[in-house]
Amino acid sequence: MASRDIDDLIKRMSKLPGLGPRSARRIVLHMLRNKEGLMQPMAMAMQELAAKVRACHLCGNLDTRDPCQICTDPRRDSKQICVVEELADLWAVERSNMYRGQYHVLGGTLSALQGVGPAELRIPELARRVAEQEVREVVLATNATVEGQTTAHVITQALETLPITVSRLAQGIPMGGELDYMDDGTLVTAFKARTMM
Amino acid sequence: MASRDIDDLIKRMSKLPGLGPRSARRIVLHMLRNKEGLMQPMAMAMQELAAKVRACHLCGNLDTRDPCQICTDPRRDSKQICVVEELADLWAVERSNMYRGQYHVLGGTLSALQGVGPAELRIPELARRVAEQEVREVVLATNATVEGQTTAHVITQALETLPITVSRLAQGIPMGGELDYMDDGTLVTAFKARTMM
Repeated sequence: MASRDIDDLIKRMSKLPGLGPRSARRIVLHMLRNKEGLMQPMAMAMQELAAKVRACHLCGNLDTRDPCQICTDPRRDSKQICVVEELADLWAVERSNMYRGQYHVLGGTLSALQGVGPAELRIPELARRVAEQEVREVVLATNATVEGQTTAHVITQALETLPITVSRLAQGIPMGGELDYMDDGTLVTAFKARTMM
Repeated sequence: MASRDIDDLIKRMSKLPGLGPRSARRIVLHMLRNKEGLMQPMAMAMQELAAKVRACHLCGNLDTRDPCQICTDPRRDSKQICVVEELADLWAVERSNMYRGQYHVLGGTLSALQGVGPAELRIPELARRVAEQEVREVVLATNATVEGQTTAHVITQALETLPITVSRLAQGIPMGGELDYMDDGTLVTAFKARTMM
């Protein structure tokens, strides 16, 4: 066993997603070897983030300012809103570097069992925002799961009366996907949604 | 891309051993979801450790006190010293829960190329400690690599004149090891060191 305090940090770390006791030990050891250059700055960065980060009241993105960098960026199209389930999804779309509109982070999917209704996902706020910002298009980018698609359906209904386009991401064979390895659902969707050459 | 500060922390994390951009993102996201209960306490623990941890002047173990918990534990045998290369090795021996003596952490192995001599590994200090503590046995637990064995050899020579036993860990087939998968060196060692039934 390591010193009690070192052990304590290893235990905390080992509960982080993707880490276990072994990898946590390795990381703590690595940090202890460079306390001034690595461990202390990292602790500072974490502390600052924990203190400063809050959810953007407009879109739900996490940022050190509210409204967030994306909502206040004048180069981004405020007339287009991409609806995602989680922050991780927003990051994924941003990494693809092809979307220049704004976002709306739901923070989950509808779930009657877990008591998650439209209000919890801030769907009324989305409708209000669409009206106020004179939004042209809402792109539904919820996951292609049952919950994600149900949620997309409910949002479509909530926005029905508004004079906007509501679209959703295309479904089909992913890039590099081999038919042999695709599940039936994907194949069926891809066949039905086949496009002309 | 996430907010600049969040991105900055992800970049730092992704350079830790065993982590990459993807796992670092996942960890940061997980921590941001529980700032008060997880991120802040973890940052505090890291900061405290970085500030308080130092090398024990006796054995080289890292601890928040000097001499360390192991060196000052009255239930541990101060007449037996286990010599290990790195702190991680000390932790490994401690986990096995069968050694109740003290340690000496070399902090590496001898390396003429990298200018690591006996003084850098605190071998003179080990000899002094052996004399002062009236040590009975020194167990050499350096790695079974060329460097580790060379280092063990040099330590043996350094302690030659002292009236103590110097032992080293047994080499052979590891528990659960299959002969078919063992390298020749291990097999040769295991054969030579075979014991009577």
